[in-house]
Amino acid sequence: MADVAVLGAGSWGTTFAKALADGGSSTVLWARRAEAAREIDQSRRNTRYLPGIDLPASLHATADIREALAGASQVYLAVPSQHLRQVLRDHGEAIAPEAPVVSLMKGVEAGTRLRMSEVIAEELRIDAGRIAVVSGPNLALEIAQEQPTAAVVSSSSPETARDVARRARNDYFHSFINNDVVGTEFGGVLKNLVAVAIGIVDGVGYGENTKASIMTRGLSEVTDFAVAFGAERETMRGLAGLGDLIATCGSPLSRNFTAGRLLGMGYSRTDVIARMEQTAEGLASVEPVAQLAEQRGVRMPILEQVRLVLDGAMDPRDIAPHLTTDDEPIEE
Amino acid sequence: MADVAVLGAGSWGTTFAKALADGGSSTVLWARRAEAAREIDQSRRNTRYLPGIDLPASLHATADIREALAGASQVYLAVPSQHLRQVLRDHGEAIAPEAPVVSLMKGVEAGTRLRMSEVIAEELRIDAGRIAVVSGPNLALEIAQEQPTAAVVSSSSPETARDVARRARNDYFHSFINNDVVGTEFGGVLKNLVAVAIGIVDGVGYGENTKASIMTRGLSEVTDFAVAFGAERETMRGLAGLGDLIATCGSPLSRNFTAGRLLGMGYSRTDVIARMEQTAEGLASVEPVAQLAEQRGVRMPILEQVRLVLDGAMDPRDIAPHLTTDDEPIEE
Repeated sequence: MADVAVLGAGSWGTTFAKALADGGSSTVLWARRAEAAREIDQSRRNTRYLPGIDLPASLHATADIREALAGASQVYLAVPSQHLRQVLRDHGEAIAPEAPVVSLMKGVEAGTRLRMSEVIAEELRIDAGRIAVVSGPNLALEIAQEQPTAAVVSSSSPETARDVARRARNDYFHSFINNDVVGTEFGGVLKNLVAVAIGIVDGVGYGENTKASIMTRGLSEVTDFAVAFGAERETMRGLAGLGDLIATCGSPLSRNFTAGRLLGMGYSRTDVIARMEQTAEGLASVEPVAQLAEQRGVRMPILEQVRLVLDGAMDPRDIAPHLTTDDEPIEE
Repeated sequence: MADVAVLGAGSWGTTFAKALADGGSSTVLWARRAEAAREIDQSRRNTRYLPGIDLPASLHATADIREALAGASQVYLAVPSQHLRQVLRDHGEAIAPEAPVVSLMKGVEAGTRLRMSEVIAEELRIDAGRIAVVSGPNLALEIAQEQPTAAVVSSSSPETARDVARRARNDYFHSFINNDVVGTEFGGVLKNLVAVAIGIVDGVGYGENTKASIMTRGLSEVTDFAVAFGAERETMRGLAGLGDLIATCGSPLSRNFTAGRLLGMGYSRTDVIARMEQTAEGLASVEPVAQLAEQRGVRMPILEQVRLVLDGAMDPRDIAPHLTTDDEPIEE
């Protein structure tokens, strides 16, 4: 019986299971496909998602989710966000009564637009203090390569946050804690909007000043938005907001940055969507976030410009880290 | 007689003079060398510092500093920081009595370790409300190329900040305002410490997670330091802190980033200093800032690690976005 269970053997679930095992926890990883579980258990590899990475001997994999959950004192969730509700509905009863349930996922559920911690709360009907989320500048492959990385574990219960953070740490991975679940989850969603804007100016060919200006001002406006919806300002300036944004904008693999870059190069919204194999979450969020911001009276000039570019109503070359209609200098 | 005068025709002074002229101000630029003034005035070029950049016709250059200052309603200073005191001592009396005096410079005076606004106050003995500073993610060449950029103008007097910001704006350059002169100047100095740390991990070969983790946590610790010495927290999260840090870490020309990169590749402090043509201000600041932090009880684990690497007491591969001696998870 393992100390902790990780559900989902994609690149992030497998990486996190490795990090937990490297931190000294006996860890079981549930893979949906039996051959994936077998490869991990027998060859210490997950060739499909983490080619070239050796997995530790203390990591056990299984395709039997009930076996994975049996007696685990902490449960980490890394399934595709659109499958989470069904997995919990089918197997939630097998989670030990006191075990913290930890979301490693970013994004919102399609349709309901609920955050992952909200889906967990709805389906498991457990105390909010048993739920935690992990976020930060966490490109899976780099952590699997044991590059030094920090993350934040958030729970409304400080004890839960600490218990999870004690497991989720080792020589190359360090977990800080906070108690702002809303802000920690918002960071992982809203940074995609800024990444689209940064992608646009990169596609146009602008350099470091423009990117730094838009990153700073963009973080400031998505922070105002998050705060209007219950997040704490400091969280957005931390690893789950700023940290994740910087890593996303630095990664050529980021879908949102790439979508922005294509827009900046002159492709239309329709072209960009057709060219992308996977959805760029940031593109889909522009319209709903802009509408919510208007309803709450949050000024988001950069998001507004991204919206104009998406609508074909603004040349991406004219994007700027401010709205040109300001008549008077405004406070930073 | 020009509206505004810029003293110093290096890359930054010339670029800022162009930005002021492009914003509609009749602008005079003082160049120390007569041939530089002549080239700017006659050929609309400053080949030595801004090769390939066309300067606007409304920009006039002169080698006569008294002519430049005569009647200017705003005076911008972009001389080398170690020359500022002497220039003000020799020519300060020629500045019009009500004119705002605006520092475009970063860094501190050698020996006294005074910030530029403090040198201005000491030498000119003028009201603090007449002094302003400009900072932000402002790589000169990119602004000269008219890439969209934001900056912040700071003065203890909101009127002065607004008056300066109204001049220092045009289609591609936007000035926000704040009233935290200490924080705005600290941002430009302290970001160099973080840039050294980012350079080190880049030199080792670590990727986006490590850089984003150290940038986020590094900004957090230099912010704690700045706040302990009178800065406002928000300023460090704005254009003069975060914005400048991002631009610096993205620029291959940054001396501090380069110094860090050499350390990360295994060169010793002595080797690095010998290889660098110009001083990397960040290297020189490590020791005094670490000592001041200790005196005030500010925790700076990343700076501490940079210090260990500089002293040859830590392998740069072991650098991490946290101190490994923490026993318990700590608040972000």
